[in-house]
Amino acid sequence: MARTMSSRLVDSLCTTDALADLFADASVLQAMLDVEAALAGAAAASGAIPDEAARVISGACRAEDFDAVAIAQEARESGTPVIPLVEALTARVASASPEHAQHVHWGATSQDVSDSAMVLLLRRARPSLARDHSRLARGLRELSDRHADAVMLGRTLLQPATPITFGLKVAGWFAAISRAWARLDRAWEAALVLQFGGASGTRAAAGGHAAAMASAMSSALGLQDGPPWHTDRDRLGALVSACGLYTAALGKVARDISLLMQHEVAEAAEPGGGSSTMPHKRNPAKCAAVLAGATRMPGLVASFLSGMLQEHERSLGGWHAEWPTIAASVQTTGAAVAALADAVAGLSVDPARMRANVGSTRGVIFAERAVMLLTPHVGRDVAQALVAEAVRACAEPGVTFGQALERIPAVSAVLSPAVLREIDRPENYIGQADALRSASLAGPAGDEKE
Amino acid sequence: MARTMSSRLVDSLCTTDALADLFADASVLQAMLDVEAALAGAAAASGAIPDEAARVISGACRAEDFDAVAIAQEARESGTPVIPLVEALTARVASASPEHAQHVHWGATSQDVSDSAMVLLLRRARPSLARDHSRLARGLRELSDRHADAVMLGRTLLQPATPITFGLKVAGWFAAISRAWARLDRAWEAALVLQFGGASGTRAAAGGHAAAMASAMSSALGLQDGPPWHTDRDRLGALVSACGLYTAALGKVARDISLLMQHEVAEAAEPGGGSSTMPHKRNPAKCAAVLAGATRMPGLVASFLSGMLQEHERSLGGWHAEWPTIAASVQTTGAAVAALADAVAGLSVDPARMRANVGSTRGVIFAERAVMLLTPHVGRDVAQALVAEAVRACAEPGVTFGQALERIPAVSAVLSPAVLREIDRPENYIGQADALRSASLAGPAGDEKE
Amino acid sequence: MARTMSSRLVDSLCTTDALADLFADASVLQAMLDVEAALAGAAAASGAIPDEAARVISGACRAEDFDAVAIAQEARESGTPVIPLVEALTARVASASPEHAQHVHWGATSQDVSDSAMVLLLRRARPSLARDHSRLARGLRELSDRHADAVMLGRTLLQPATPITFGLKVAGWFAAISRAWARLDRAWEAALVLQFGGASGTRAAAGGHAAAMASAMSSALGLQDGPPWHTDRDRLGALVSACGLYTAALGKVARDISLLMQHEVAEAAEPGGGSSTMPHKRNPAKCAAVLAGATRMPGLVASFLSGMLQEHERSLGGWHAEWPTIAASVQTTGAAVAALADAVAGLSVDPARMRANVGSTRGVIFAERAVMLLTPHVGRDVAQALVAEAVRACAEPGVTFGQALERIPAVSAVLSPAVLREIDRPENYIGQADALRSASLAGPAGDEKE
Amino acid sequence: MARTMSSRLVDSLCTTDALADLFADASVLQAMLDVEAALAGAAAASGAIPDEAARVISGACRAEDFDAVAIAQEARESGTPVIPLVEALTARVASASPEHAQHVHWGATSQDVSDSAMVLLLRRARPSLARDHSRLARGLRELSDRHADAVMLGRTLLQPATPITFGLKVAGWFAAISRAWARLDRAWEAALVLQFGGASGTRAAAGGHAAAMASAMSSALGLQDGPPWHTDRDRLGALVSACGLYTAALGKVARDISLLMQHEVAEAAEPGGGSSTMPHKRNPAKCAAVLAGATRMPGLVASFLSGMLQEHERSLGGWHAEWPTIAASVQTTGAAVAALADAVAGLSVDPARMRANVGSTRGVIFAERAVMLLTPHVGRDVAQALVAEAVRACAEPGVTFGQALERIPAVSAVLSPAVLREIDRPENYIGQADALRSASLAGPAGDEKE
Repeated sequence: MARTMSSRLVDSLCTTDALADLFADASVLQAMLDVEAALAGAAAASGAIPDEAARVISGACRAEDFDAVAIAQEARESGTPVIPLVEALTARVASASPEHAQHVHWGATSQDVSDSAMVLLLRRARPSLARDHSRLARGLRELSDRHADAVMLGRTLLQPATPITFGLKVAGWFAAISRAWARLDRAWEAALVLQFGGASGTRAAAGGHAAAMASAMSSALGLQDGPPWHTDRDRLGALVSACGLYTAALGKVARDISLLMQHEVAEAAEPGGGSSTMPHKRNPAKCAAVLAGATRMPGLVASFLSGMLQEHERSLGGWHAEWPTIAASVQTTGAAVAALADAVAGLSVDPARMRANVGSTRGVIFAERAVMLLTPHVGRDVAQALVAEAVRACAEPGVTFGQALERIPAVSAVLSPAVLREIDRPENYIGQADALRSASLAGPAGDEKE
Repeated sequence: MARTMSSRLVDSLCTTDALADLFADASVLQAMLDVEAALAGAAAASGAIPDEAARVISGACRAEDFDAVAIAQEARESGTPVIPLVEALTARVASASPEHAQHVHWGATSQDVSDSAMVLLLRRARPSLARDHSRLARGLRELSDRHADAVMLGRTLLQPATPITFGLKVAGWFAAISRAWARLDRAWEAALVLQFGGASGTRAAAGGHAAAMASAMSSALGLQDGPPWHTDRDRLGALVSACGLYTAALGKVARDISLLMQHEVAEAAEPGGGSSTMPHKRNPAKCAAVLAGATRMPGLVASFLSGMLQEHERSLGGWHAEWPTIAASVQTTGAAVAALADAVAGLSVDPARMRANVGSTRGVIFAERAVMLLTPHVGRDVAQALVAEAVRACAEPGVTFGQALERIPAVSAVLSPAVLREIDRPENYIGQADALRSASLAGPAGDEKE
Repeated sequence: MARTMSSRLVDSLCTTDALADLFADASVLQAMLDVEAALAGAAAASGAIPDEAARVISGACRAEDFDAVAIAQEARESGTPVIPLVEALTARVASASPEHAQHVHWGATSQDVSDSAMVLLLRRARPSLARDHSRLARGLRELSDRHADAVMLGRTLLQPATPITFGLKVAGWFAAISRAWARLDRAWEAALVLQFGGASGTRAAAGGHAAAMASAMSSALGLQDGPPWHTDRDRLGALVSACGLYTAALGKVARDISLLMQHEVAEAAEPGGGSSTMPHKRNPAKCAAVLAGATRMPGLVASFLSGMLQEHERSLGGWHAEWPTIAASVQTTGAAVAALADAVAGLSVDPARMRANVGSTRGVIFAERAVMLLTPHVGRDVAQALVAEAVRACAEPGVTFGQALERIPAVSAVLSPAVLREIDRPENYIGQADALRSASLAGPAGDEKE
Repeated sequence: MARTMSSRLVDSLCTTDALADLFADASVLQAMLDVEAALAGAAAASGAIPDEAARVISGACRAEDFDAVAIAQEARESGTPVIPLVEALTARVASASPEHAQHVHWGATSQDVSDSAMVLLLRRARPSLARDHSRLARGLRELSDRHADAVMLGRTLLQPATPITFGLKVAGWFAAISRAWARLDRAWEAALVLQFGGASGTRAAAGGHAAAMASAMSSALGLQDGPPWHTDRDRLGALVSACGLYTAALGKVARDISLLMQHEVAEAAEPGGGSSTMPHKRNPAKCAAVLAGATRMPGLVASFLSGMLQEHERSLGGWHAEWPTIAASVQTTGAAVAALADAVAGLSVDPARMRANVGSTRGVIFAERAVMLLTPHVGRDVAQALVAEAVRACAEPGVTFGQALERIPAVSAVLSPAVLREIDRPENYIGQADALRSASLAGPAGDEKE
């Protein structure tokens, strides 16, 4: 097997096939070459270089003709892969049409090429993430609708609390993920700006052709036009931060699912992967990937932000640190949303077990409800004391909270048997679950909208 | 002097007076009490508790009557300051009107109070940052206008590059900071949402009063209404991240100023602070504060993002970690923008020294320009070789780049003395500096706008 | 109540009383004044200033006579609290003995004072953490011993796995925490180095008195002597990082406890705090504090590391960012270890429930064991197929894994009823649990030792 | 060119050839296969499986026979590359010797293989970093010795301060880097522990062979033996943190060098790389790589620490996030030390320019010295006022500080012309520079020693 140069294993849980390909050498090289081609095309269109030169240069801009590994090695000497790439491209053009070699990389600086190439890769990565997000959002909405009335334990600080519905819980997941996606999507759109500034951001080398070239290049590459941003990395930083926020929102859901999937809880389960030693196991492999991504991202965001204090017109170090962080952020985020979309799509839910787990508390989670019911009759202090007494009585096997209350004369004097019998019916104590579910599914509004 | 309980020194460089006061106990207590008062008011307005109870409770909600240090101690037992606060408030109400004590904290959970109080503090912090940002933005715009034509070295990787104008440089600062502020301001607005969900987010305890109470509370507190967000921390996360991005943009400027202020560069200087040992020194104390903030923020962002994977209906740990991070983020950001606004307002600029520093390169930074001029005549390869020869000749003391070029016959054969004489005039090689400056000062457009 | 200047609430869950006091103004001021006193004493001892001057200066070094809040404000102008402090101290000395005022701060620079004061605070903080660590380590060892034989589910990826003992689990906690403490303790010891370098680290101002003064100061302050380390922050960085590692080890335990404490698992529980709305709840407030600390620390470590690239002989920004990070790291770590020591000391453990939870899997967690037993007879492929069949049969209510195996002729042909009857006895499949428990309790060895 | 699967460009500035190869698929695969081979060998040696099986399995453990890209893809389904790898290995063994296939992976769990493989990679990476560190340390020591007496400006907050020697400065670099390496080296050694725990850490599947197997495996792989550490990641965390500290110490040096290399300072320069547009430029490409590494590492440390709260006996997410972080940390650190060793080895130093830059302050940096000299005669207040007057007089062109002092009668009355003439001789005001240089070069002592 001939794939000896690959580097897929180390990052395997934090990427997808499509995104690993996108940030692999062939694609990165091609993105840089696409920028060189667009540059030549723009220079020709504005009359700075001959049309024929642009044709020849564009024709030479094929990644498969370049040696990425050698370019990566040489990059360590010059501080950027663009210098060896331009040399190699110039050599290729020269071998075909010596007279056009001088038009390669006309009017640009290395950073113009590497930044525009990274932005181009971001543009190309976007649809893959958008597809998985749509799949996830759809899956969550359907899941919430399907289980709109499934009562279950609310759980606070990992302890049983008053009941909720699974539909409400999932709607909350949906709302947070939708807001986070809207932020990410907006940051993504805003980041797709051409870099074209020349040696120090004035485009002086391009002379009178500068504005026309910038306009033509951005059209050719599908990017927005704008002033150079050599040391203004806020748009990329906003994108990486938004990856962090989005992945955190995904991670919250994966944590919840993995907790619901515990053997002792068993309320929901993703299809799951196997185990090398335990044939009975159904491992939450998808949740693991999401949680891995959410674990990784905060540090990646910090790395990027730390590099943003970029000196003068081109930074020393901060800029050079960006590529691995951006590539890791996009791949990690893409892997996480793909995995969660899978987990949600295949999620099995057990409403009976949800109800059984409510029952297993024997009703003590309705203590708050009992206090609310008793307070108008006996005052809150007495109500709390009576309820505490009943909760203690539930420590006895087989006694439910309703029964324990009923046995307390001061309670049965004011609350009817009918009320007490139904005190632990979860349906009776889910408050605004329905209305809040609907509101959450309505998605981000106004400023938070996509 | 009686201020023995204060804790201002450790954080002194990372806050402002106003923000330190805002996050001090008196203000934090009052914010929580304001939420309790609004809660009582809303419960009364919706008919859940007597109007008189709300009046009594509101009257008791005065921070100066509570012992913050004791509440902080007890918070460590219960996991939140709200439980001891509610106990203390209940006791105060009881001592005045025993019958109303039971209406304290009606229908709410601890997290409703602490989250709403934090959001309230954020609302109160905002104007202070906005004022300093406005001052900074105005200062930058004026600085850019004033020095629109001041030529200076572009500097890339801390080495001299082709010239720019100081006006363009400052316009770039302005643009990045303006975009970052627009993001922060939007995140700030979006974060100001009431928390009111009750024990597990359904508002069950509030029964039929829930919706009306939420509406009344949000009005009373000047917050937006919306579904509970007990474990959906994305809005706060977006705010903290936006603090990180904004502070990074400020930090870039502080780094630039501090580099320009080096004795050997001496192109600009902030008023500066003194030294305890060196009376001659003018220390960039304002830049130091900005850079300190920009150094701190990425880790704060990471801390916040890491805590966002909050379990089920109330988190264990993630939520409990938030307050110090939010308070530090806002104070650090506020300190940074105030310090940079000061530095910019008092910045002295030395255009003569800027020009002299251009001159000190003896023109070699115009090598690119010479290549562009020679290439049409002799081809790029030859042009680069000739220019390299001239650059080498400049190593000789007293020789300028123009002179060195002129001495090379192959150059003087194609470039006239007039051209060569002016080849190192920076004004002639600043490309689109003017147009780009204007574009950058136009501020964020479309989606990036405030 | 007069404590209006306090700032305890925002950080309340991330500190202890003792550590909050230590980093409060009175203590921080006193630490700086202690350094000034030691400096004066050392200068006098080496003959640089009169003995009487040192006496007067030392006598003036009482924190209660200074206005910390004012000094914090002025610190923002000068970039350090030491400049206003030295001014105030000089004024106090001058008011008593005008002739000695000139000897205040003799031969030192501001950073000497602030760094040495911070190191002094670290020295003072250490015993409090050491005490809580000892308490925790003792508690874990006892817990492991007490439950050496308590079988329970191993849990991998939050799914049931082959059994372990609670004794082994706790021994693993002990081992990791002990190693992490040994690292922290060593880093702490190594960090306690005097800072005394003067304006740029040569101690030039102290002239021939320099070495003697450094020696005397370090003795007086209980710190190690050594070359100045104005921009070499690695020892502090190692301390902060070690806080991060230690807190992470604590956090793992808190996460485990909180998972065991879930209602549905119920194998162990900390005493727990209450709830403002749910009288039945026993909230893991101690675990929450530990997890909050472990959530916060990674970002604090990142902040510190990011600030370590300190320019030349005194940094601009990196140094200025340190105090809040160090203070937060120490307090967070102290709060976490105190809380976990409490949780462990009060932990209730339910071995019967542990065994019951093993039983609730109906034996499928012994699938690996069955494969191991069958493989010699039928080969691994067949063994796995047979076991998988048995696992599927356990889906049927009431069937245990042993019964399911027994019903498969190919199994009962090779495994005796006695073996099959005992196949789900956890005691029979805990491997080296005892030996590994003992090894883990033996503590770190060699290089990892304290 | 056939290297289409490579992924070297994105990370090109943050790795070395050797380390990129080490973490590429061929090497990672081989490391996992080496563990499987050692496992089979150990099982055979202890009598658990036939010797012939171990021979056949070992013979099949050749990375070139496996499809890393396919394994990486399948890893996303099962949550680990080990499951598909074991399947593929089993299939290869089965195709040669069907009877031995059942002995593949005997007694181990997936995590045993992946953790031991990562540790093996760490062992293999170590010599490469150690070599570069030795080269760097040697280079720094020589550089310090060579320039022991080269006086230069001390610089604090990027402003001129009292003079130092370049020898002292470099000795400080050496000391911090040596301490940081000693920490890293110790953490590295401590991390090289075999992972062998089976399904849940008890080694139950290995039965009575467990201890012998662990011993044999660790010998075969050159790792330490010890209890399983499935969820105790502190040793890896210590290694990653120590990478962070070491890289920060390297970064401080790179920052200093890059500042000294500024055109306006010009005191030292690395050989430097070229520019694609500016033939005159000598870019600090090595410093850029070091600074990029130091920018990246803090976030990587935070990512690792955040993942250390690993649940129960095998974590969900935290563990899955580790590989990319560890691989990036080691490569980034390796790239940084290699680059800095290059920069230091090739560093050109200009002592004349150093002295000239001292001179360019016209002596005002000796203000502290003048205060020290005047104070015994006139008291500190007057001394400071006189010196401030002289400093102001130096604003006048051509006036030196000595001359300005001489012109002030109150000064010339007490300080002789000889003293005033020599007041700005840097050699006279470098304090303990020599002694401190020697002390710093003596390296870490006691606990901080390697």
